Amino acid sequence: MSGRLVGVGVGPGDPELLTLKGARTLAEADVVAHFAKAGNASNARRIVAQHLRPGMQELPLLYPVTTEMPTGSREYRDAICAFYDDSAASVSQHLDEGRTVAVLSEGDPLFYGSYMHLHVRLAPHYRVEVIPGVTGMSGCWSLTGTPMAQGDDVFVVLPATLAEAELERRLLDADAAVVMKLGRHLEKVRRVLSRTGRLSRAVYVERGTTAESVAVPLEQKHDDVAPYFSVILVPGWDQRP
Amino acid sequence: MSGRLVGVGVGPGDPELLTLKGARTLAEADVVAHFAKAGNASNARRIVAQHLRPGMQELPLLYPVTTEMPTGSREYRDAICAFYDDSAASVSQHLDEGRTVAVLSEGDPLFYGSYMHLHVRLAPHYRVEVIPGVTGMSGCWSLTGTPMAQGDDVFVVLPATLAEAELERRLLDADAAVVMKLGRHLEKVRRVLSRTGRLSRAVYVERGTTAESVAVPLEQKHDDVAPYFSVILVPGWDQRP
Repeated sequence: MSGRLVGVGVGPGDPELLTLKGARTLAEADVVAHFAKAGNASNARRIVAQHLRPGMQELPLLYPVTTEMPTGSREYRDAICAFYDDSAASVSQHLDEGRTVAVLSEGDPLFYGSYMHLHVRLAPHYRVEVIPGVTGMSGCWSLTGTPMAQGDDVFVVLPATLAEAELERRLLDADAAVVMKLGRHLEKVRRVLSRTGRLSRAVYVERGTTAESVAVPLEQKHDDVAPYFSVILVPGWDQRP
Repeated sequence: MSGRLVGVGVGPGDPELLTLKGARTLAEADVVAHFAKAGNASNARRIVAQHLRPGMQELPLLYPVTTEMPTGSREYRDAICAFYDDSAASVSQHLDEGRTVAVLSEGDPLFYGSYMHLHVRLAPHYRVEVIPGVTGMSGCWSLTGTPMAQGDDVFVVLPATLAEAELERRLLDADAAVVMKLGRHLEKVRRVLSRTGRLSRAVYVERGTTAESVAVPLEQKHDDVAPYFSVILVPGWDQRP
């Protein structure tokens, strides 16, 4: 009798934004697995630390160091792919021995989450459940009290890595948008928002709902320094009744 | 000393998908307000029923009957606007008397939620907090184990009310999509998914995460009958490592 895999969304950062179901799952699981970069503590683990039981088995899944490989290169893809294969194998050992394995995922597991790489490898072979979580972006617009989308608004999530013209075209085509993965792209995104007339309603948020969160109207942020996981909110809903 | 307004996201339907913070807020609030159509019970209230305390004050906010008015008409807009104005006035009476009012919102309060209409009217005048919730769409893709978006995917939310050509253009332009508010538009959406080559990966979900949920690959749904709040998931993430 094999065990059960559970993807647990732990929410955007505030430990209280875990769901009741997520908390119960952690109280019942045999093993808790979490992704982190080698040398770093898992952010997802930190969010749920108070729910981990003494003596609970932990399975850290540590991303390989790939800084010397160009992203998009064959070498990079192979290293990442091997890492996910190995991670899935580690989890499946526990499942084969009948244990329930909770895999932590910041935000929502099936929405831009690392958990998905385990899910696609293991779901065909084991009992699997996914517990949704509050997304990082919901955390950001709730923190800032920004009404995002309403009625028939078209809402879009755009990576800041898109080329400038492409980002501009897509912003003009949406009612509401979140631009994510800002990092070194903030200057470009700011130019595009200005040209499309959206700068005045754009809100910059980093580390939403955590103790270190920063949230300001973008016009009031006077530098273009942004961590990778910061976002810009462009609220829609122009025609309020 | 006036009270506090709290928008509480109650999640997609499963009562266990309420957050710990949502549960604590309901344990502490003086008044709980909830929207419903006149003559119907509030769905959001049903989700959190076990957290309501005996003797807690309840403030039902009942949408007026507008079935005889064409949506988009001046008459309709005026009726809905008056309703939100009156609702905000009812809530502010409690706030003026120093009470904490929790306003329930299915899914996430600031993402296509009725709560937003109170928020924009009251946030300038009172202390306000918004507690994010798991969205309805996260509930749907978690229920079906559908990995939605990854890496640099562009993700879009489209109302099924869009014209057929517009829907087609936007689907072709996105990596991952949720088509919402299906209702009588399912036949049109199915045609568009077929023409754009996305029919085979589309998943139909109604009432996700509730006891009455229905979830099938769209190709296996043999009629075009769909409730208003059903959705179609079109997962992205073609290039899995």
